[in-house]
Amino acid sequence: MGFKGVFFICFLFIFVILQASIGVSGRRLRSISKPDPDDGVGYARWLASQNTWGVLSTISLELKGAPFGNIVSFSDGLPDKGSGIPYFYLTALDPTARNALMDERASLAISEFPTGSCGKKDPENPSCAKLTLSGKLKLIKGNTKDAEIAASALFTKHPEMKGWPQNHNFNFYKLDIEDIFLINWFGGPKPITVDQYLRHRMNQPALVM
Amino acid sequence: MGFKGVFFICFLFIFVILQASIGVSGRRLRSISKPDPDDGVGYARWLASQNTWGVLSTISLELKGAPFGNIVSFSDGLPDKGSGIPYFYLTALDPTARNALMDERASLAISEFPTGSCGKKDPENPSCAKLTLSGKLKLIKGNTKDAEIAASALFTKHPEMKGWPQNHNFNFYKLDIEDIFLINWFGGPKPITVDQYLRHRMNQPALVM
Repeated sequence: MGFKGVFFICFLFIFVILQASIGVSGRRLRSISKPDPDDGVGYARWLASQNTWGVLSTISLELKGAPFGNIVSFSDGLPDKGSGIPYFYLTALDPTARNALMDERASLAISEFPTGSCGKKDPENPSCAKLTLSGKLKLIKGNTKDAEIAASALFTKHPEMKGWPQNHNFNFYKLDIEDIFLINWFGGPKPITVDQYLRHRMNQPALVM
Repeated sequence: MGFKGVFFICFLFIFVILQASIGVSGRRLRSISKPDPDDGVGYARWLASQNTWGVLSTISLELKGAPFGNIVSFSDGLPDKGSGIPYFYLTALDPTARNALMDERASLAISEFPTGSCGKKDPENPSCAKLTLSGKLKLIKGNTKDAEIAASALFTKHPEMKGWPQNHNFNFYKLDIEDIFLINWFGGPKPITVDQYLRHRMNQPALVM
């Protein structure tokens, strides 16, 4: 084996490691370029589109009205074609869905940290973005246009959901957004209206990684 | 440059990439071996010890009692010597601390996903663990034993906090845990008492990665 052979094996190894690290850190979906921090609306939509999970908080029935955060997967649409509206696939075997069926008030908190684009910044550093979408968590009734949108949004980004057990009675939910809290730089939260957020058109996909 | 030189350069490169990927995916702290899923108490303490950030939910003043989740960094103690009690460094410029000062009820949700040990599982898959610690979020008064514990817990895992601006009036807070919700396998939440959780002694550190 000559120099060429050694180089080939080394670079193959490097390629495999890079692929593995991209998978683990959850950056697979990062295909739209990160907006400038000044563009708060674009940044919020980018976060909602590139992230696949967050914490959904509801008012707890079991804990007598205390706030209860729960790890959930979500999707705001097809990859790179998000609407900004988060859809969920939840079962009432879990407290979050049970809580929402009694009191719809909810918030979804999303961090930029797991997308891998915060570098070595602390997750609480204001320049590593934090988005909280607050509003009403609504059950989506079967065989509606909304159920179709939810299914395609969720099952493309979370393919294993399609195989989750039928007897667990998973249902689609969506968050009707009423308030947006975004910190993506120093100087406090960005003022963003729900209308600005929902009407924003995302930029085009850039080269992956 | 001979074969040895080529190998040396390649492996140096591979080493640098591995270090970078470990940093980005937040696995730096994973030095205690992951407990068996049957050991719910050990698993919950392992999650609290190995994770560095989560979502802290409070009852929102601005949103008239709605639940409000916010991305925060936390620490339960020195690396590999956690107590299970999460400490925070928060400013009342931020709604979470303001909310807690009016209504202490809070929960901290932590996911196993960002530690990198869920493999290709979906973040909502029950075998990718989710921990929610609920209780009262308490402001820690200055120059107390608790303030000392909070400072050493937070500043070792989040060194940049030491340099955060003094005029933002950051204060230490802790969560007095009253309820534990853990899903780390199929079959619903694990029944764990606060006493079991706090009294648990973690196993010894294993080899890093």
